[in-house]
Amino acid sequence: MAVYTEISDDDLDRFLDQYNLGQALSCKGIAEGVENSNYLLHTDSGYFILTLYEKRVKAEDLPFFLGLMEHLAAGGFMSPRPIAAKDGKSLKQVAGRPAAIIEFLDGRSIKRVMPQHCALLGQALAQLHTIGSDYSLQRMNTLSLSNWRPLYIACQKSDNDRMNAQLFPEVEAEISFLENHWPDALPRGVIHADLFPDNIFFLNDRVSGVIDYYFACNDFFAYDLAICLNAWCFENDGSFNITKARKLLNGYREVRDFSKEELDFLPLLCRGAAVRFLLTRLYDWLNQVEGALVKPKDPLEYLKKLQFHQAVKNVAAYGLD
Amino acid sequence: MAVYTEISDDDLDRFLDQYNLGQALSCKGIAEGVENSNYLLHTDSGYFILTLYEKRVKAEDLPFFLGLMEHLAAGGFMSPRPIAAKDGKSLKQVAGRPAAIIEFLDGRSIKRVMPQHCALLGQALAQLHTIGSDYSLQRMNTLSLSNWRPLYIACQKSDNDRMNAQLFPEVEAEISFLENHWPDALPRGVIHADLFPDNIFFLNDRVSGVIDYYFACNDFFAYDLAICLNAWCFENDGSFNITKARKLLNGYREVRDFSKEELDFLPLLCRGAAVRFLLTRLYDWLNQVEGALVKPKDPLEYLKKLQFHQAVKNVAAYGLD
Repeated sequence: MAVYTEISDDDLDRFLDQYNLGQALSCKGIAEGVENSNYLLHTDSGYFILTLYEKRVKAEDLPFFLGLMEHLAAGGFMSPRPIAAKDGKSLKQVAGRPAAIIEFLDGRSIKRVMPQHCALLGQALAQLHTIGSDYSLQRMNTLSLSNWRPLYIACQKSDNDRMNAQLFPEVEAEISFLENHWPDALPRGVIHADLFPDNIFFLNDRVSGVIDYYFACNDFFAYDLAICLNAWCFENDGSFNITKARKLLNGYREVRDFSKEELDFLPLLCRGAAVRFLLTRLYDWLNQVEGALVKPKDPLEYLKKLQFHQAVKNVAAYGLD
Repeated sequence: MAVYTEISDDDLDRFLDQYNLGQALSCKGIAEGVENSNYLLHTDSGYFILTLYEKRVKAEDLPFFLGLMEHLAAGGFMSPRPIAAKDGKSLKQVAGRPAAIIEFLDGRSIKRVMPQHCALLGQALAQLHTIGSDYSLQRMNTLSLSNWRPLYIACQKSDNDRMNAQLFPEVEAEISFLENHWPDALPRGVIHADLFPDNIFFLNDRVSGVIDYYFACNDFFAYDLAICLNAWCFENDGSFNITKARKLLNGYREVRDFSKEELDFLPLLCRGAAVRFLLTRLYDWLNQVEGALVKPKDPLEYLKKLQFHQAVKNVAAYGLD
């Protein structure tokens, strides 16, 4: 949940003057997105999401993100479309922050994931990969293999209370292992890289929206699958749900088939994805901001997921034959 | 800002089955209201506010509040209208909480109060008093004179660190003074009792909505004015803006004139209103909930307002001749 930046009435009116959307009839902060301030904006032209980009999103990356949303929507994918201002640009400023007005998409993110949602997720992910493959801009994944060791060291430095003394050697050994075994080449292109249940809207038993592209980057397609296996296929008690994994992977290959190499590397990519979220959550946990509205997520959830994937021999563990 | 209670998809669907609004297309938590959980709900029938009543609102008061909104809206006042379910009732339950679907009103609450807003506020407040005067239900003000001493004692008990040792004798003396001088009889009826800038929407230079009736009760009309003088007519630096006060009072009497007695008692009522907000803010300050999303408001703001009114001799200080 997040509303960080308040917008004065004058600022909002001046901002909207740059668009062909009429005046602001209503503008309410909404509890959506963790990294940015989001408002539900009602104008004479309809309902929109107004996003103000906070510090964790780099301004220089915004053209990649907004361009991607536009590209995906133009290709028929259920990404919300950024609204262009009168000058044709969708990236503007308000209240001292980079800002964009984004199409409002109906649908609801689900709180209780069922296997059929995983099948729809798999199809949507493969569509994103397919339609995104001819997007012209590039963005490096800044939370991948080469970033994990620096992030690990930053976590160690932040752990003043030595609360996690036992955790660190285990994570360090895993990072070393991944550094030695990470694949050089797999099918790659634009990935979402953060496709958690919060970021998909469902409506009438289909996917109506995929949002929050602010970690999107160029990386292995199968790494995106690995992120989703971690985010969607474990139960609250920590157990892995092989039915959900099978639905996810089979849904995916209905739209885009994976190579044998992608499948072979999937357990390793799942370990990497678990390390990525373990580290960023651990860093946030150790660096909590006094008075922040967002409670950091439990990093140890991802330690347990990591341990599950470490024991996986092959993709049969994920429900594939 | 507040979203306290999450609603599962099944709960929301079952809840909406009780209404003639179609299905839920979207339901987003919004940062509006401090006491309750509020969602912006989009259904086949349009946009609505879904409110879940949290613990601080007593369930037995809800028929008074919802009935009042209905009564005011029916009388032409810009209150949002509660939506009746198929059985005619507007008070239902969802996710274990009392809940109601309320009309969505356009307009924006203002962050920077200008004198012309105070004139519009005064008119709206007088309209509320006039239209509310034939509302059949009654609700006692549970945050008035007789409640201040118990609340004061509760604050004292909560002040383990003796941070406010200087403050307490001053407040206690004021409560004694108010107990001895509070009027017995002034024109009375339904008052809003919490008409802060957050709770009024403006659109196209008029009031488009008055929301948040969850402190409404039967009390002196002029006490509602006193609350507004405190909430709207001081600047951020603590200074009193007599122009805003004059606009507020003159706006009010365009719609409903006050008696000489109401005016004579206004400085005293302003002192009482300052004590009421000082005490509730102090109590919240001293009893902060770990991890709460709402940061308590500064109680000392109201001590300064109290001191201003203590020095007031008559309504000339509020801009009236």
